[in-house]
Amino acid sequence: MNQLIVQKYGGTSVGTLERIKEVAKRIARQRKVGVDLVVVVSAMAGETDKLLKMASTITENPERREIDLLLSSGERISSALLSMALHAEGCPAMALTGRQIGMFTDNSYTRARIKQIDTARAKKLLQENHVLVVAGFQGINEQGDVTTLGRGGSDTSAVALAVALGAGQCEIYTDVDGVYTTDPNLVPEARKLDTIFYDEMLEMASLGAKVLQIRCVEFAKKYNMPLVVKSSFVEDSRGTLICKEDPNMEDPVVSGIMCDKNQAKVTIKGVPDKPGIAADVFGALADVALSVDMIVQNVSEEGHTDISFTVTGADLNEAIQITRQVADAIGAREVSADKNIAKISIVGAGMRSHSGVAATMFRTLSAENINIMMISTSEIKVSCIIQQSQSKLAVQKLHDAFNLAEAPQAAKPLSSPKKAGGSKRVTGKRRAG
Amino acid sequence: MNQLIVQKYGGTSVGTLERIKEVAKRIARQRKVGVDLVVVVSAMAGETDKLLKMASTITENPERREIDLLLSSGERISSALLSMALHAEGCPAMALTGRQIGMFTDNSYTRARIKQIDTARAKKLLQENHVLVVAGFQGINEQGDVTTLGRGGSDTSAVALAVALGAGQCEIYTDVDGVYTTDPNLVPEARKLDTIFYDEMLEMASLGAKVLQIRCVEFAKKYNMPLVVKSSFVEDSRGTLICKEDPNMEDPVVSGIMCDKNQAKVTIKGVPDKPGIAADVFGALADVALSVDMIVQNVSEEGHTDISFTVTGADLNEAIQITRQVADAIGAREVSADKNIAKISIVGAGMRSHSGVAATMFRTLSAENINIMMISTSEIKVSCIIQQSQSKLAVQKLHDAFNLAEAPQAAKPLSSPKKAGGSKRVTGKRRAG
Repeated sequence: MNQLIVQKYGGTSVGTLERIKEVAKRIARQRKVGVDLVVVVSAMAGETDKLLKMASTITENPERREIDLLLSSGERISSALLSMALHAEGCPAMALTGRQIGMFTDNSYTRARIKQIDTARAKKLLQENHVLVVAGFQGINEQGDVTTLGRGGSDTSAVALAVALGAGQCEIYTDVDGVYTTDPNLVPEARKLDTIFYDEMLEMASLGAKVLQIRCVEFAKKYNMPLVVKSSFVEDSRGTLICKEDPNMEDPVVSGIMCDKNQAKVTIKGVPDKPGIAADVFGALADVALSVDMIVQNVSEEGHTDISFTVTGADLNEAIQITRQVADAIGAREVSADKNIAKISIVGAGMRSHSGVAATMFRTLSAENINIMMISTSEIKVSCIIQQSQSKLAVQKLHDAFNLAEAPQAAKPLSSPKKAGGSKRVTGKRRAG
Repeated sequence: MNQLIVQKYGGTSVGTLERIKEVAKRIARQRKVGVDLVVVVSAMAGETDKLLKMASTITENPERREIDLLLSSGERISSALLSMALHAEGCPAMALTGRQIGMFTDNSYTRARIKQIDTARAKKLLQENHVLVVAGFQGINEQGDVTTLGRGGSDTSAVALAVALGAGQCEIYTDVDGVYTTDPNLVPEARKLDTIFYDEMLEMASLGAKVLQIRCVEFAKKYNMPLVVKSSFVEDSRGTLICKEDPNMEDPVVSGIMCDKNQAKVTIKGVPDKPGIAADVFGALADVALSVDMIVQNVSEEGHTDISFTVTGADLNEAIQITRQVADAIGAREVSADKNIAKISIVGAGMRSHSGVAATMFRTLSAENINIMMISTSEIKVSCIIQQSQSKLAVQKLHDAFNLAEAPQAAKPLSSPKKAGGSKRVTGKRRAG
């Protein structure tokens, strides 16, 4: 039996009829080397937005069940067209909807979770030598109604199918050729990584890297499904392999650098220093499901403290409003806000075994007179809040300091058969599918 | 329990988001008077053609299975949007695909026949007070794959659902306000008919009237489901009721006049007059599924005959080619063709009991010096082939001769509760859905 590969093509990869024909040619070629293929497609670029705009023109609050029925059309169209294009290439193919591929979800319209995949039909069709062209992003619930998986849903469809069908790997085709050490727009020397670990990719995704959705990486990590991010626009794109850490391999200390400018800082000054105050503040924010990222509390003057926290730019106004109410209630002196900040983060699985990484980061920033306002750390990440105007400089200097432009020599090859000199690092931007 | 009405809105009726909102308002108003509603929708006008064009850009011979998956999106989109618009009007609604409404068909992709409708879910939802908004034109086969019902499929979906759910009537909403005695573009005095019988409508449809597809009328006739054709663009459109003949009622002799210019005549001259020749000619045409309409054979000179037949304009070239081959083989003298003809038909259930109708038609045409080239008749129809240049004059004079501009006085009211002075006549044009 052939090896099975699940591929996912995002919206830009099937964005025009010309692109769909090119993708079909690519698939037909790949198939000739003797692999079985399940191809998951997103809606053609712009299609989902167009449908959502129609819905919002009809009514301000469209029913979520009907939104899912509406949106699922986008992927059905691209899967039918790609299947036709494959037939035209002489490649036996069959387009399958979420229901037809057996994708069963819960009832949470617009953000459904996959419950189970009934692979009977898929397996039969693969045995009959078909390329399966699956409408991503969609499933059905137990009432038989259409559900969608939310943002990045097609990536999740692909990984889930790869796991259910026992694929060798899951390839995510997009408009960039992999994951980069940092945003190439900020640092021209940014290097594409050959490999990156699930945990690193998860940190990156939660720090705003759009190359893959957190959920899809979590899924892949949970079932140890190797993910490859590749470009569908470049012939022979080698891409970036996302896989589990290899205990035999020495991990690079830092894999990538992220810069998130969509952050804002709120500070409450002169807070009476007594128990329960922080609970009051963050309880009130949690009550409206407002997500707080970093928090710093430091004692300032006699019995009073300052509390600072960060939220996304979009949440800032609501956060200020709620914080002011709480500040009045607890007798704090004032509430201030700062939108001109950036969060600079370094990520690397090697931090677990290497000390001094954070110190190197602080020293590098300090040498450039970049003031660090807040710090937070995890096992494999250090984040600093700095002035936004200094963010580009900070990323460039950190990229140099951790020597990210050069491929590490020490690293051993990883398990992927395609990889030669294994190495790994993070980041880069990419449209979500 | 409320009376149930099935309504179908064609492509122009839901052609824009504005139109969809208007249709929702109309449905919400109707619902307040206490009827249960199942609403079948076509794709938004132009959408199906757009999808077909995409398919033909991808490949010259798209798979029919994939075409059906592709095309079914159009009705899904309009059903989801109309359901949203109904919610916005405060009207509980639920969009349902062909599968969700239980529409099971055979395996003939792009022209599937309905095999069975599983009404369990529809009945439950109606009891729960929902307006059901059904994606027309589509069903699923026993493999669970999407099928479409072919041209006019949404009308057929509507009638089939009306029958399966025991609806009181099936209303077809379109962009004209009913069926006319003849094309108002030809005869300004053309009158909208209040009522027309199934058989008359069937003759009209087979003569090229686009107001309803033959299949939908056949279905309605078979199950005696009253059909009403109405405009969705006119408030309080009374429309035309299509129903079974009332034996207690005196039928108008002629209900309507049709003019079909899309006809061409092929003549084989000097055919040896021996048995089997007609079989040779029409067998060869049948072999390529070429549909022949009228046939005339008349003995001319010593032992030779002429055979003439009509085909649609689109089939003419192929018909000539095949006929020439047969003519050569059987030793006929020559094959000629004439595209400048028109078929003028009068239709009326009253012809069954009235004699002299055909004679009146021939006399009327003769009085205008209009030469009749071919004649064919059925129980309730007489058709004549004449020169195309004389067709408008012919229709006008026949409309006068049979007094169609005036509503008949003799007719009794029919069973429809909405009808006052019952009468009936045929024709008019309308986009197919």
